[in-house]
Amino acid sequence: MAKVYDRVALIGLGLIASSMYWAIKRAGLADHVTGYARSEETRQTAREIGLCDTVCDSIADAVQGADLVVLCVPVGAMGAVAEEMSHYLKVGATVSDVGSVKRSVIDAVHEHLPQGVHFVPAHPLAGTEHSGPTSGFASLFDNRWCILVPTDDSTPEAVAQLRALWEGMGANVDEMDADHHDRVLAVTSHTPHLIAYTMVGVADDLRRVTDSEVIKYSAAGFRDFTRIAASDPTMWRDVFLTNKDATLEILGRFTEELFALQRAIRTGDGEQLHQYFTRTRAIRRGIIDAGQDTSAPDFGRGGPTKR
Amino acid sequence: MAKVYDRVALIGLGLIASSMYWAIKRAGLADHVTGYARSEETRQTAREIGLCDTVCDSIADAVQGADLVVLCVPVGAMGAVAEEMSHYLKVGATVSDVGSVKRSVIDAVHEHLPQGVHFVPAHPLAGTEHSGPTSGFASLFDNRWCILVPTDDSTPEAVAQLRALWEGMGANVDEMDADHHDRVLAVTSHTPHLIAYTMVGVADDLRRVTDSEVIKYSAAGFRDFTRIAASDPTMWRDVFLTNKDATLEILGRFTEELFALQRAIRTGDGEQLHQYFTRTRAIRRGIIDAGQDTSAPDFGRGGPTKR
Repeated sequence: MAKVYDRVALIGLGLIASSMYWAIKRAGLADHVTGYARSEETRQTAREIGLCDTVCDSIADAVQGADLVVLCVPVGAMGAVAEEMSHYLKVGATVSDVGSVKRSVIDAVHEHLPQGVHFVPAHPLAGTEHSGPTSGFASLFDNRWCILVPTDDSTPEAVAQLRALWEGMGANVDEMDADHHDRVLAVTSHTPHLIAYTMVGVADDLRRVTDSEVIKYSAAGFRDFTRIAASDPTMWRDVFLTNKDATLEILGRFTEELFALQRAIRTGDGEQLHQYFTRTRAIRRGIIDAGQDTSAPDFGRGGPTKR
Repeated sequence: MAKVYDRVALIGLGLIASSMYWAIKRAGLADHVTGYARSEETRQTAREIGLCDTVCDSIADAVQGADLVVLCVPVGAMGAVAEEMSHYLKVGATVSDVGSVKRSVIDAVHEHLPQGVHFVPAHPLAGTEHSGPTSGFASLFDNRWCILVPTDDSTPEAVAQLRALWEGMGANVDEMDADHHDRVLAVTSHTPHLIAYTMVGVADDLRRVTDSEVIKYSAAGFRDFTRIAASDPTMWRDVFLTNKDATLEILGRFTEELFALQRAIRTGDGEQLHQYFTRTRAIRRGIIDAGQDTSAPDFGRGGPTKR
C-alpha cells in the first residue's frame, strides 16, 4: 500500500482513533502520526502502549505541520476542538472527523476553519462495545463502510486522498450528503441504540424482582440488546442531542407501530401479529440477499452459554 | 452416553424437534424416535432427509408405545394436539413440550392427559432465525439452558429422566415454576423480540424514503434487530397471545422509560441521557462477569461487510 499522507494528526484517542493508528501503520499510509487527548491519563496510556508516533501535550503541537487532521472526539466536542486548533493548521491541510452525526458537526466545525483548509467530514460505520485508547485494533474497519460527506470546502483532490486513506485502512467508501446521512443513520443505528438502551434499563429495574435470572437467562434477543447498550455513553448522548430531529421522527413512528402491536396483543388479534412478523422476516431475507449478513444458523443468540 | 428412553415421539417437526432428533442420535439417547407433522409436505421432507427413525402419518401411530412424547408445535396448538393424542398414550409415559410460554401450555395440555401419564413441561432457550424440518442441527442445545417446569403430574423420577435427556443433548438444565418462568422470559426474550419486530417494521416503511440504504448501511444495532425479527411468525404470534399479561406489563414499563428518554432528547437534557447510558453499560459488564457472554471486541456488529 502506498503512502497517502506525510503527517496525520489524530485528535481524541478512543476506539476509532486508536484503530486508525494501527490500521495506518499496518498499511504504511503515513510517515508520521501524532496524537492528542485532553486527558493526561489517556496520553500516558497512549505512550505506554506505543499508540501514535508522537503523543503531544497540546493540540497545537499535534496539528502543526499535519497534512490531515482527524477529529475523533464526541460529536458535541467537535466545535470547541476545531476552534482550539484552527490557528495552528497548515495551509492546504485536510480536516476530517469520524462523528456519527454529520450536519451538526459541519455546522459546528466549518465556521472555525481558516481559508485554504479542506474540510471532508467522514463517518466510519464500525465500532465495538469498548472504548478508550486500549480498545483499538488494526482490522476494525476491514470491509466496513466509511461514508464521506463532502462540503463546499472539499476539493475533489482532498476527497480522493481521504478516500484512499480509508480504503487503505480496509474500508469500503461511499459518499452522501449530510442530511441524508443523518436520516439514514437515525433509522439504522441511532434509534435502535436508544431502544436497546431502554430495554436494558427496564430489565435492570426488574432485576429486583427476578434477581440474577435476567442475566442468567439473557437469551435470544436480550443479549444482543445488552451488547448494543454497552457503547460509550458520551458518544451516544451527543448523537441523540445532535441528531435530535431525525431521531425523534423515527421514534414517533416506532411508538406508533409499537402501540398498534400492543393493542393487537391486548385484543388477541393474532392475524395482525402474524402478518406483521411475516413482513419483517422478509426484510431480513432482503438483507441476506443483499450480502449484508450471513444466514449461518447460530449467532450466539440462541441462549447463554454456561462457562 | 447411555440410553435414556426406549421410544421417543416428536410431534411437530420444526427447528427444535429436528435438532432434538439429531442431538438424540448423536448421543444414542433413545432406541427409536418417531416423528409426526400435520403437513404432508413436512412429513415428506423429513423422510427425504432421514429425519426420525419413522415418520408417521397420524399422531396416533407416532405416540403409541412412546415412553416420551414431546410436543414441538406452536404454543397455541398445544391443547388441540394434546387432545388428539390423549387416547393413544402409553400408561406411564412422560409428556413434555418445548414451548416458550409455560403457564398457558400447562393450562391447555393438562386437562387432556389421562391418569398415569407424567407431564413435565420444558423450554430450551435455543433457536436461530430459521425454521422447518431442514433447519435443525445436533449442536443447537450445546451449552444452552433448558428450563424444566415440573407440575403436579411430574414424579421426581420422570423429571430426572427428562433432565438426563436434555443433558445428554448438551443442555444445562434448571427448574422453575411456570409463572416465574413466564415473567423472566417476558423480560429477557418476549418483549425484546416485539421491539425488534417493531423497529424492523418501521425501517421497512422508511425504505421508500431512503431506498436500499437502510439495508446497505444496516450497521451496528439494526442488523441485530433484523436477526431477532426473522424468527418464526406463528411461534411468536402465539407467544405474545399466551404470555399476554407479562408482556404487556413489561411493554408498559418500556414505553414509560422510552418516553422519559425521548423527552430528555427533546429538551436537550444531556445529563439524564448520559446517566442512563452509563447505567446500562454496567449491566452489560454484569452479564460478561456472570460468564453469559464474551467481551470479544468484534461481534460482526460494527457495520455491514460488503461481499
